[in-house]
Amino acid sequence: MDDGDTLGLYRNYMTCLNEWRWEDLGRFVADDVVHNGRPLGVAGYRAMLEADTHAVPDLQFIPAMLIADGQTVACRLAFECTPQHTFLGFEPTGEPISFVEHVFYRFENRRIIEVWSLIDREAIRKQLSQ
Amino acid sequence: MDDGDTLGLYRNYMTCLNEWRWEDLGRFVADDVVHNGRPLGVAGYRAMLEADTHAVPDLQFIPAMLIADGQTVACRLAFECTPQHTFLGFEPTGEPISFVEHVFYRFENRRIIEVWSLIDREAIRKQLSQ
Repeated sequence: MDDGDTLGLYRNYMTCLNEWRWEDLGRFVADDVVHNGRPLGVAGYRAMLEADTHAVPDLQFIPAMLIADGQTVACRLAFECTPQHTFLGFEPTGEPISFVEHVFYRFENRRIIEVWSLIDREAIRKQLSQ
Repeated sequence: MDDGDTLGLYRNYMTCLNEWRWEDLGRFVADDVVHNGRPLGVAGYRAMLEADTHAVPDLQFIPAMLIADGQTVACRLAFECTPQHTFLGFEPTGEPISFVEHVFYRFENRRIIEVWSLIDREAIRKQLSQ
């Protein structure tokens, strides 16, 4: 699988997330996916995404930087959104916030098998504590 | 410049950091480098690194994941270290800490011209607040 294939798969995964097509998630995410060292599995991964999009109904995954190398993708995601419910442990203010997430994904058999995500919680904390 | 060249340059940059060869930094970092949107320049970049290594004398930059695509590098850096002075605004406890940094670098003319860094400050906060 070359870099172009992996990027294509990843872009389709982003579209799946942005359209809330949770029933399709298993096309992109392996049954035994591990997220930040936790063996979430696709069901746990879906639950996490559903919780996030419940808390932040206008959450859109927009790559600001995106590179692939073989079976690995790295993406800087830039979020502009307005949380409506508790999000990552922070209470909403009704005001929009912006933050980034830097994520590494490892693919196996054309699906995401491992995710290492870092979210700028410090930025969220500052914006939701004002 | 292919991915292998960029990775080689990046590995040499890591070695430069780990050996505190600040006088060589300009070989790897452009005069007008921008860090997280701030136009630090190589002097400001060096000052940042010198401050970090003063605060954390055993700071070593170890790539846990590393990929390149053309002129862009993405790296997950895993740190295990013991801060001795105020580090990123947190006071040291004398105990070792571990945290990660996810960084994207854009190269231009074989030097780093742009850096987007995200450090897991939440992890540092938790470990240094105990």
